[in-house]
Amino acid sequence: MYGIFSYDIASPRVGYRHGDFILDLETVALLGYFNPLNINPSVFAQPVLNPFMALGRATCRAVSNRIGELLANNEDALREVHDQVLIRATRATLHRPVHIGDYTDFYAGIHHAEHVGRIFRPDGDPLLANYRHMPVAYHGRASSIVVSGTPIRRPSGQVLNADKQPEFRPSAALDFELELGLVIGKASPLGQPVPIDEAEDYIFGLVLFNDWSARDIQRWEYQPLGPFLGKNFGSSMSAWVLPFHELEPVRCAGPEQHPRPLPYLQPSGPGHFDIRLEVWLNDACITRSNARYLYWSFAQMIAHHTVNGCNLNVGDILATGTISGPTPDESGSLLEQSWNGTRPLTLPDGSTRTFLLDGDRVTMRAFFAPDGHRQELGEVTGRIVG
Amino acid sequence: MYGIFSYDIASPRVGYRHGDFILDLETVALLGYFNPLNINPSVFAQPVLNPFMALGRATCRAVSNRIGELLANNEDALREVHDQVLIRATRATLHRPVHIGDYTDFYAGIHHAEHVGRIFRPDGDPLLANYRHMPVAYHGRASSIVVSGTPIRRPSGQVLNADKQPEFRPSAALDFELELGLVIGKASPLGQPVPIDEAEDYIFGLVLFNDWSARDIQRWEYQPLGPFLGKNFGSSMSAWVLPFHELEPVRCAGPEQHPRPLPYLQPSGPGHFDIRLEVWLNDACITRSNARYLYWSFAQMIAHHTVNGCNLNVGDILATGTISGPTPDESGSLLEQSWNGTRPLTLPDGSTRTFLLDGDRVTMRAFFAPDGHRQELGEVTGRIVG
Repeated sequence: MYGIFSYDIASPRVGYRHGDFILDLETVALLGYFNPLNINPSVFAQPVLNPFMALGRATCRAVSNRIGELLANNEDALREVHDQVLIRATRATLHRPVHIGDYTDFYAGIHHAEHVGRIFRPDGDPLLANYRHMPVAYHGRASSIVVSGTPIRRPSGQVLNADKQPEFRPSAALDFELELGLVIGKASPLGQPVPIDEAEDYIFGLVLFNDWSARDIQRWEYQPLGPFLGKNFGSSMSAWVLPFHELEPVRCAGPEQHPRPLPYLQPSGPGHFDIRLEVWLNDACITRSNARYLYWSFAQMIAHHTVNGCNLNVGDILATGTISGPTPDESGSLLEQSWNGTRPLTLPDGSTRTFLLDGDRVTMRAFFAPDGHRQELGEVTGRIVG
Repeated sequence: MYGIFSYDIASPRVGYRHGDFILDLETVALLGYFNPLNINPSVFAQPVLNPFMALGRATCRAVSNRIGELLANNEDALREVHDQVLIRATRATLHRPVHIGDYTDFYAGIHHAEHVGRIFRPDGDPLLANYRHMPVAYHGRASSIVVSGTPIRRPSGQVLNADKQPEFRPSAALDFELELGLVIGKASPLGQPVPIDEAEDYIFGLVLFNDWSARDIQRWEYQPLGPFLGKNFGSSMSAWVLPFHELEPVRCAGPEQHPRPLPYLQPSGPGHFDIRLEVWLNDACITRSNARYLYWSFAQMIAHHTVNGCNLNVGDILATGTISGPTPDESGSLLEQSWNGTRPLTLPDGSTRTFLLDGDRVTMRAFFAPDGHRQELGEVTGRIVG
């Protein structure tokens, strides 16, 4: 996994996570280990991954392969320079790995959408008419996306009181949302849709993503133009970006899609991935879900996003929306777990939660295990401060 | 007005519009005319205004004053270097003047909101319950904002056919939206709301903004999360940014606000501006409106946007939403002018429009005249291509 780290007097730079160590890729490059790849070492001396990602999928893949060779066999190849290039992770500070151009949040988790529909429209069809025809999405705020570990300040805002009058106060319905984020590694020009079978070429890698939400602020503001202050006080992304090609062993079919989507959303092969997801609230694992539960695939999201000519830039983030499973303990938000606050959750320490309290820490983890060998994605964690 | 221009072999750089000429500010600085201000000339040798704007309001104001001195009295001060520093505008290519971090679109034009409400909810209250309590807004797409003059390609997408089934085709309801855009010139940190009486300090200047909209795509996609592909195929901004302080002579009171907004939205003085706005469709002026019609002021937009701790960055754009007046010929969109296509507009050439046709050119102009002396904002124009 790639990320941005600094340590001691070394300014932020590109690193590759290797167990308890981080491989300093600028130093590796300066020492000549990437010479066959003909890469300017300065792309690794940047405070964001964007210049590296912009080298293109083939080059990034070649770097990953070369790193794999260097780190194989107990790092034999690097033995003489071990202390120069492998930095103990505990010494490092991690930074937001990407300069984010635009951030889009999808709504591709169908169980989440169904749960939300049942909570807020108990008498109607839980899914709106468009849901099975297109990956619904909205634009989010890029500026307030922070790296894992950054504290999240409880937002204040307008919420309706018991008399249905707006008042200004701290949110009393602060929530998390369990999502994956695609990091875009290839630009698409304005006016040119990305065909669905080329869509995955635009993905550099994946992060875990927590789209913190203030449900009470959101409820009062969101008609008719969608979520705004209920979301844009902060979102958290993991510090480490998993290169997309590493997911190939767990590629799988997604749910059957009825009705069949329009041709621009029909891929020629499976585009889902068997990635297990967990949410930990303080010391308790309260959710186990899976990326397979997404209704729409990554490729479908990209094809839809660009079908009107909207352009993508390197560093854009496309998040999936909350990934819930069908049952309450597979829910990717407290809104669902507590059924909008009506069914408090009991934690192992005996305390209960409807929404998050100050001091609560939410940690999301993800892993996949193609042949029993567990591979982690970068975790995303954040603690609520009042 | 400030913008980014290139000419002959000169790469994109900061210019100041002066009638039919553009003052090349890098050259002015290199020739020493800004020496008393202690500014590195390189801020003017950039392809975006961001480094200049980031110098802060006082410095930008001092530059404006100095430019005013240099250009006064028939440019006496510049006579000997006239050909070096004053470039005929017809020689120049104009570029998008700002690197845009995030783009937010408000809904602050109350007549527009009322018209839309009456069109789509004829039996209900035209304004939703939250409208008079907060400046409703949503996040837009920054990547697809283009400079005035850039052709706009008609987007295709999912729209409902006569049988209420989605089909994929070019939008048949392409529209413009007459807006102003605030260009943010000062960053606010994450977690720290901007008090309303400091909010205007964050505005570098104003542009005219056309938030092109595909109504048929928007109508099918926008529930429950707001507009997405119906908007993000392109927005146009004027090439020239009017420094905010130049509007001071036309500051005025806005509409009375009932109910009185919450304290964080109560300014201590007037925050509206008497700016006259026009929309031209090909050769016909079809709309005359005014920025005074906005319900929410610029300062209220900024205070609301940041009240939950959301941060602003230099180069963000906050657009007002469509600015319509109460009558049809003051409407800032064809949706309103044609009442959702039911009342076609007749142009001087005898043709009619409900929405835009391929080949149509939409030009927005704005001016203010504090003492009869007409001052223009930069125009924004774009032509629809199929």
